Amino acid sequence: MIERITIVGTGLLGTSAGLALRAAGFKGEILGCNRGLEQLATAAKMGAVTPAKSVEEAAAASDVTVLAGPVLSILDWMERLVPVLKEGQLLTDVGSTKTEITAAGERLYNKTGRATFLPGHPMAGKEVSGAVNAEATLFDGAVWLFTPAHEIANEVAAEWREWVHRFGCRTLDLDAARHDEIVAWVSHMPQFLSTALSALLQQHFGDAEDMRAIGGRALREMTRLGSSPYSMWRDIAHTNTDAVAKAIHGLEQELTHLRENLTTPELRTMFEEANQFRIPRPAEKK
Amino acid sequence: MIERITIVGTGLLGTSAGLALRAAGFKGEILGCNRGLEQLATAAKMGAVTPAKSVEEAAAASDVTVLAGPVLSILDWMERLVPVLKEGQLLTDVGSTKTEITAAGERLYNKTGRATFLPGHPMAGKEVSGAVNAEATLFDGAVWLFTPAHEIANEVAAEWREWVHRFGCRTLDLDAARHDEIVAWVSHMPQFLSTALSALLQQHFGDAEDMRAIGGRALREMTRLGSSPYSMWRDIAHTNTDAVAKAIHGLEQELTHLRENLTTPELRTMFEEANQFRIPRPAEKK
Repeated sequence: MIERITIVGTGLLGTSAGLALRAAGFKGEILGCNRGLEQLATAAKMGAVTPAKSVEEAAAASDVTVLAGPVLSILDWMERLVPVLKEGQLLTDVGSTKTEITAAGERLYNKTGRATFLPGHPMAGKEVSGAVNAEATLFDGAVWLFTPAHEIANEVAAEWREWVHRFGCRTLDLDAARHDEIVAWVSHMPQFLSTALSALLQQHFGDAEDMRAIGGRALREMTRLGSSPYSMWRDIAHTNTDAVAKAIHGLEQELTHLRENLTTPELRTMFEEANQFRIPRPAEKK
Repeated sequence: MIERITIVGTGLLGTSAGLALRAAGFKGEILGCNRGLEQLATAAKMGAVTPAKSVEEAAAASDVTVLAGPVLSILDWMERLVPVLKEGQLLTDVGSTKTEITAAGERLYNKTGRATFLPGHPMAGKEVSGAVNAEATLFDGAVWLFTPAHEIANEVAAEWREWVHRFGCRTLDLDAARHDEIVAWVSHMPQFLSTALSALLQQHFGDAEDMRAIGGRALREMTRLGSSPYSMWRDIAHTNTDAVAKAIHGLEQELTHLRENLTTPELRTMFEEANQFRIPRPAEKK
């Protein structure tokens, strides 16, 4: 039975995890740690966590520790918590890239005498960050991915998965490298594309009012992620560089091909191919 | 007083215009023409139009004729209606590009003894087409652009603008070339981008289930326009080719720059620039 959980990083995902645990009926203690104390106070005020002073002390006393910062911070805490955690305790995370984190988990944990590490990644988020934007329902209808290097037959890990289901998530286990390849295409490339598009329009139009009067739903959707914070995406760019670069390069080539065929019948072929692509809505996936 | 209106093309926009006229209290006759009779029957069944057999006869007997097909079809009808329309009648359109249409209007109309032509473009639409998807509220909150080459001081044109306001639109007059440049960036380029992205993902993943399970809101938004029909966008590509090609080329270069700087501090600059870009929501624009 999980009785105490520590959440390291009370930003959007960490605070939402605390709120989701409470909404799902978790009665135990939820400790929260965050370098910025204002963010931690907000998470506490929202009822997501009880502030803890030391990550090491909180983690040492917890059944589950959830690392909920950017990827490089997760990798850092994985190193620092090795001497603190013991066999029977679970360390897990919500990091956006999984190859490096999963490899570090095998190197540092998942051995006799060591805690269990279960790499995780909820496909949920917003273009705005911080505890103040957290919601108990953030994960409802989302898929929560796990990328263990081998099967983890462990009671506390099984119980954590149950809580994730109670958040309203489906779970899916997949290989860490396949994870990073897929998210490069379906999450990271769209983000960097939205950033590039927003930056380009800002350069081209500045504060032009006629442009802003004319831009509608389509443009708002395509540039929504342009508001995303650099701090989080820097770590993703650093830990999934090759897969992201390959996906962006693929898009550059596709755009060139479309541009060169604006007035040829090849444009029809591209539209027909695009017409086939469809991402089901969460309700349809359940 | 406008007593009879003919709508040529009862697809998404034409049928929505008929429904919006009725919802706004237009009591006169609304005639509808469409090459495909099924689409015309749907529009009639929805109460948007009364089917007319001949465009020429309907237009000749109407105070206002609205050309609501793709751009090349609008240009075609502009030519064909010259001998039919007389001074005092208004011809207008809802076409997506305006340089060629506005020039044709000056060449064929807006002269002594000829009808008035007022080039128009409601910034409203959907990724699905056809009368069946039409709605009386499609234009509510949108901006309806007009691109006359000179001021049109004409009672029937002024009354048509009033109806557009009653649809819930703001109106904005701008130069046809500036219109085509802006929409190349804020409407056409995002569409072709979504088409390229959707086509690329379809090529890369085919029917892979893990990709579809993982793709979330961001990807759904970025690929929504991938469903748009070629038939409409072909005419846009043909009549705004240079401006669209320039915008797409700009995006290709921006993506290359981002890709080459995934792990350099320049990525921060791009995110900061993107963070500044923002399109107000319709409610904020009113």
